[in-house]
Amino acid sequence: MHHPDAVLALLDLAPSGRVDAVRLVDPDAPALHALDLAATRGDGVFETISIGRGHPQALRPHLTRLASSAAMLDLPAPDLDGWREVVQRVADALGGHEEAWVKIVLSRGVDGGDRPTGWAWGEPSADFSVARTEGIRVALLDRGYRSDVARTSPWLLAGAKTLSYATNMAARREAVRRGADDALFVSTDGLVLEGPTANLVVRLDGVLATPRTDVGILPGTTQADLFRWAAGQGIPTRLASISPQDLQRADAAWMVSSVRHAAPVRAIDDRAVPVDAELSAAMNAYLSGRTE
Amino acid sequence: MHHPDAVLALLDLAPSGRVDAVRLVDPDAPALHALDLAATRGDGVFETISIGRGHPQALRPHLTRLASSAAMLDLPAPDLDGWREVVQRVADALGGHEEAWVKIVLSRGVDGGDRPTGWAWGEPSADFSVARTEGIRVALLDRGYRSDVARTSPWLLAGAKTLSYATNMAARREAVRRGADDALFVSTDGLVLEGPTANLVVRLDGVLATPRTDVGILPGTTQADLFRWAAGQGIPTRLASISPQDLQRADAAWMVSSVRHAAPVRAIDDRAVPVDAELSAAMNAYLSGRTE
Repeated sequence: MHHPDAVLALLDLAPSGRVDAVRLVDPDAPALHALDLAATRGDGVFETISIGRGHPQALRPHLTRLASSAAMLDLPAPDLDGWREVVQRVADALGGHEEAWVKIVLSRGVDGGDRPTGWAWGEPSADFSVARTEGIRVALLDRGYRSDVARTSPWLLAGAKTLSYATNMAARREAVRRGADDALFVSTDGLVLEGPTANLVVRLDGVLATPRTDVGILPGTTQADLFRWAAGQGIPTRLASISPQDLQRADAAWMVSSVRHAAPVRAIDDRAVPVDAELSAAMNAYLSGRTE
Repeated sequence: MHHPDAVLALLDLAPSGRVDAVRLVDPDAPALHALDLAATRGDGVFETISIGRGHPQALRPHLTRLASSAAMLDLPAPDLDGWREVVQRVADALGGHEEAWVKIVLSRGVDGGDRPTGWAWGEPSADFSVARTEGIRVALLDRGYRSDVARTSPWLLAGAKTLSYATNMAARREAVRRGADDALFVSTDGLVLEGPTANLVVRLDGVLATPRTDVGILPGTTQADLFRWAAGQGIPTRLASISPQDLQRADAAWMVSSVRHAAPVRAIDDRAVPVDAELSAAMNAYLSGRTE
């Protein structure tokens, strides 16, 4: 079911969000109340952080984004120092593994209660070498929203990393039905957005481009990390409005995320996309913490 | 936190969805695994069923809708006979209460596992007499989707009752910020849809009307029940395409749902709507099982 080295930390949170205590518990024991709003309403936020030999990657941006998501959901502001310690504790426990990950979850708590629920689950990563080297196929799917939805309708929580991912999971199943490995969302007004659990990076005219974050998507922590690295390598980067037509002239593309890292895209719907094996390997060496 | 008579039933489900066993457990003990996809992805479906003196209301339509939601999420088909027994067992335990409710949840299960998770939570209802007699204020909020989204983009799961309700909860908070009690969604192409946890019924020209179900909304079990009752009372009913402009000439409106029953709407945004106290009382007497 899960890796034998899996780690589960349960947090005792004050109504303010303050981390009062942390307990490492048996990962197989039931941990959540049946009325926890995480389970009954998907009403909470999360982050998944990569761990390279005990070192959490891009921890500060992940915690910043957790706080941003929590604010969008009117949750208590997460106690970032407390959460940082929890992540490090899980990372320490998994320090013997080349690659691992930890998911941190902050929910609104048990329905009718006065305090949020928090937990952290960590385990060694699966082997993503096929996705990272051979690449993945993606299917373009309508996200149903206009690209300005975060501004016009903030209650739709576009740009918050919530636990309500049923549509993301359904989109991925639809992509698989279409013979692809992952989905890539497009807004109703024709802008490429993001995947269900990954950001898009495309190479257009020698520039690494990713969709602007004001189109109702999550700002990518891995994408940002990658762009800093690229800049250091002399590869130009930019945020851009990207249409499905733009994708047709991309000479390389990647879906980037915290755990799978940079998966080169080898097809978008029926169109093959070249895989830049050398650049993909360099990206993944960096993201895995094997190079600086 | 919850009523002392609360009841929690945990189901042992086979990979096929078959109910193998049911255990009544301590409602306060942790019940769910930290990797349950209900809690990490909002990846499951639910129903909330009203119980009047031990009698589950409209049980068959609720179970039918559970099966429909499960199919939209590619979940194993729920074992409806098994679930019916679970609901009746919880209802029996709550039979001493005038009004109670039970929420049944079917999730995709623990991530990486091969079987769904199921549970049922029941407890006596809160007192909704103020909402049922004085009425509620609703705020119109953009749902962000076109009304044809269920047909064009089924992966968005419009019309499935999923656990991914973070936006529904956020919409209700936004309604409260606007001085209202509940939200009422409108499609981007100008059709009135549903509330976060309730269906709309309006009286237009002497006819009780509710939005057509092909606009990406949940078919309302309580609304359907109410329309059958209304027909028996000689009150005409119909499904209709309803615009915000139509709401302005409604001479009565209700938000109807399984537990709160029929809450008359006394204002939509800034416009007052007349409350038909007599008809509201008759509706709620019927929905509470106090009349046939």
